Amino acid sequence: MPVPQRLTALTLGARSVPALRAFYEAIGWQANEGSDDTFTSFTMGSVRLALYPIELLNAEAAPGEVVIASGSWNGTTVSVNVATRDEVDVAIAAAVAAGANAVGSPVEREWGGYTGYFADPEGHRWEIAWAPFFTNFE
Amino acid sequence: MPVPQRLTALTLGARSVPALRAFYEAIGWQANEGSDDTFTSFTMGSVRLALYPIELLNAEAAPGEVVIASGSWNGTTVSVNVATRDEVDVAIAAAVAAGANAVGSPVEREWGGYTGYFADPEGHRWEIAWAPFFTNFE
Repeated sequence: MPVPQRLTALTLGARSVPALRAFYEAIGWQANEGSDDTFTSFTMGSVRLALYPIELLNAEAAPGEVVIASGSWNGTTVSVNVATRDEVDVAIAAAVAAGANAVGSPVEREWGGYTGYFADPEGHRWEIAWAPFFTNFE
Repeated sequence: MPVPQRLTALTLGARSVPALRAFYEAIGWQANEGSDDTFTSFTMGSVRLALYPIELLNAEAAPGEVVIASGSWNGTTVSVNVATRDEVDVAIAAAVAAGANAVGSPVEREWGGYTGYFADPEGHRWEIAWAPFFTNFE
């Protein structure tokens, strides 16, 4: 296969790595050893979630291009599946308590699940999803 | 843990799900059964990469917010680690042959690896990364 069908890391360009890290720690996540104010990572199963200053990520990955306005939606979402319907409400409430903004309320989806979104302090959209047919995640 | 430290899906809001799917298929990826022009997914180890029309994702995850301009950088990158240095060049050449834009040339990074980026036809940044200390990915 010319490009392996694999996803090893998602890097979020951060306005403030320490502040975004503090939010993720407040929702219960543990940063990897060696994380600092320039580069912080979290192990998410087989994927790393990385935080890197957006101006440095811009220079490396999109040199010369405009940096998206702070807080605006970036056109993507990241999902965290949970094992029960109740966990959706619990997780979103915990995120909001830690400083996230809820995006509406969780909704019964037409495909049979129940999901809701929160925006982290820099606007990244996280979906907490319960899908009754998909509970064998890592 | 209030919010599980887990990442089960990354959804890219797409201007054209079929065109973006065709690009990913051209670099060798296989879409999941049930994929169609509104929702297409790829299994990437323990994560799903999903493509969903950006206006629908906007309505669901960021209602009332402006949709990022087509082709502009979204402030994030997604990485695919590979097992050898040579695979970086091979993968980027394959992506470019399939319609991606190379972002400069791969570079020896100060942290000891060798990585390069391409932009898919809608501008999402993919990093192909060789990190000598990280080859036990899924």
